[in-house]
Amino acid sequence: MTRALRTPLAISLGDPAGIGPEVIAKCWDNRDGFALPTFVAIGDPRSVAAVWDGPIELVDDPRQADAAFDYGLPLIQLNAPRTDVPGHPSVAGAHTSLDSLEIAVGLARSGSAAAVVTGPVAKEQLYAIGFQHPGQTEFVAERCGISPGNVVMMLAGPTLRTVPVTTHLPLSEVPAHLSSALIESRGRAALRGLQRSFGIAEPRLAISGLNPHAGEGGQLGREEMEIIEPAIAALAAEGWRVTGPHPADTLFHARARANYDAALCMYHDQALIPIKALHFEDAVNVTLGLPIVRTAPDHGTAFDIAGQDLADPRPMAAAIRMAAENAIQRADAA
Amino acid sequence: MTRALRTPLAISLGDPAGIGPEVIAKCWDNRDGFALPTFVAIGDPRSVAAVWDGPIELVDDPRQADAAFDYGLPLIQLNAPRTDVPGHPSVAGAHTSLDSLEIAVGLARSGSAAAVVTGPVAKEQLYAIGFQHPGQTEFVAERCGISPGNVVMMLAGPTLRTVPVTTHLPLSEVPAHLSSALIESRGRAALRGLQRSFGIAEPRLAISGLNPHAGEGGQLGREEMEIIEPAIAALAAEGWRVTGPHPADTLFHARARANYDAALCMYHDQALIPIKALHFEDAVNVTLGLPIVRTAPDHGTAFDIAGQDLADPRPMAAAIRMAAENAIQRADAA
Repeated sequence: MTRALRTPLAISLGDPAGIGPEVIAKCWDNRDGFALPTFVAIGDPRSVAAVWDGPIELVDDPRQADAAFDYGLPLIQLNAPRTDVPGHPSVAGAHTSLDSLEIAVGLARSGSAAAVVTGPVAKEQLYAIGFQHPGQTEFVAERCGISPGNVVMMLAGPTLRTVPVTTHLPLSEVPAHLSSALIESRGRAALRGLQRSFGIAEPRLAISGLNPHAGEGGQLGREEMEIIEPAIAALAAEGWRVTGPHPADTLFHARARANYDAALCMYHDQALIPIKALHFEDAVNVTLGLPIVRTAPDHGTAFDIAGQDLADPRPMAAAIRMAAENAIQRADAA
Repeated sequence: MTRALRTPLAISLGDPAGIGPEVIAKCWDNRDGFALPTFVAIGDPRSVAAVWDGPIELVDDPRQADAAFDYGLPLIQLNAPRTDVPGHPSVAGAHTSLDSLEIAVGLARSGSAAAVVTGPVAKEQLYAIGFQHPGQTEFVAERCGISPGNVVMMLAGPTLRTVPVTTHLPLSEVPAHLSSALIESRGRAALRGLQRSFGIAEPRLAISGLNPHAGEGGQLGREEMEIIEPAIAALAAEGWRVTGPHPADTLFHARARANYDAALCMYHDQALIPIKALHFEDAVNVTLGLPIVRTAPDHGTAFDIAGQDLADPRPMAAAIRMAAENAIQRADAA
């Protein structure tokens, strides 16, 4: 990092049986090559030791992480009930991953950590222990006192950022869920996030159509005319730099990407197909609209390869770097 | 080309007011750099002369193209009513583009040309003169005596080929249009096309899901379980190498692409977003299921830039190269 953060980043290990512990440990191993700032992991040290031979530096407080970082992976230990076996998720592991997330968010909210990076969790196991949120994002929002409807997920890679308006819906339900109000709200959150976390004073947002060829003047669907265009007009009337509705198929090639800072997409795969096609190894999930900075690698627990030294640490490294950059950006603006 | 074709390729100029004449002329200019085989254009020479200063060699028969190719762009002249102004489509121009297409297809059907490459046409103008087909593809199919339902469009780039199951439908109508029979039929046509035109003896077809995460076991949609999986099972039972349903967002990164020869996608943008994000300059539209080889650049008439020397000839060059490769492949197999 060119500029130092005053406090380390807090990283939750995620599910102890997933690849979270491995990729975080590998990030510490390659901290120089990946150009990573000081971070402190939170979780069960046994889940790291099960997959990694490197040194772990147990700390009680993030303030100790800077001194420890040269010697080992700084880790705040949780009282975890037992060591999970890599690749075999359990109810106990779900408790550990939730405690780890809770503490990481608390450290960031109190200012003890500069930002939160979250390791991947297993939703099925979390639901089994009574977790009520659709995912970690909504949990973090609630802990920060923000309505989940006011936070947005951005997928950010080196040459493309996308924000889905709708996320985990069957495709057939997407058209009925779209509304001008929802598009405006997601668009506004994306634009403010580009200003606040990415330091772009006058962000440009490209808004996609829903239908092939953005509806081709109504011949291939009317949502563009009835829902998306009014939302674009409303955002433009507020002074935002917005364009669209753009045909989605021609929105993501290199020349098109140069014309905007983020693309607002109507559904999950419209946002995720291009980001993962172009930036599978370094796309970062950024939560915008929170009082704290939160990023995550854009992959899951990958239980099928956990504990086999196969996990690629680059997405986690990208998430750590972006958390640091966003935190610096926010500190500069404050 | 490493191996020569016995006959030249026939290229319809497309709409005379579009960028077709310009990109075809530029392909002749750069025939060595683009590694192009002999081709003959069919259309109004005035539409080429209006946008290009190079030499045109008028020929009556494709057999004359080989001798002429070193000296100028070989062109079979149509009795066109008047010269169109670049960027200003007209009814007369639509007649010219249709005649040009008709002759190019006839040359390929008779064996006088090795394949057809079609320049971009303006559908609105074609409809105005009574054209009854959704696009050039259906017209070519009819002229070849093939039901349009039995031909499929493939988008082919250097590292990815995709085939959409449904094409120009509003997104809200896609789920209702999907059926196991349609997926099987498109899949079979894609697989046979990979064998016949691309020379892949045992082609591998990856079939995408419709919903986010391919439905996540029914939680995010049931089309995968009820429609797509039975189609995959049926194709597998015929001995084809098919996999899926795959979550669409993780199907198009480099490592995933290495596992299949083509991806069968459920809707227009699912197929076109990744191909255009990755291969905007060299994606080719290939029509599979015809008795002749037909390709086209994956762009439109671009009236807004016609006549300004701005059109990029690389997509047309890619379409010409692929037509030649497919024709050689078919000749080898015959």
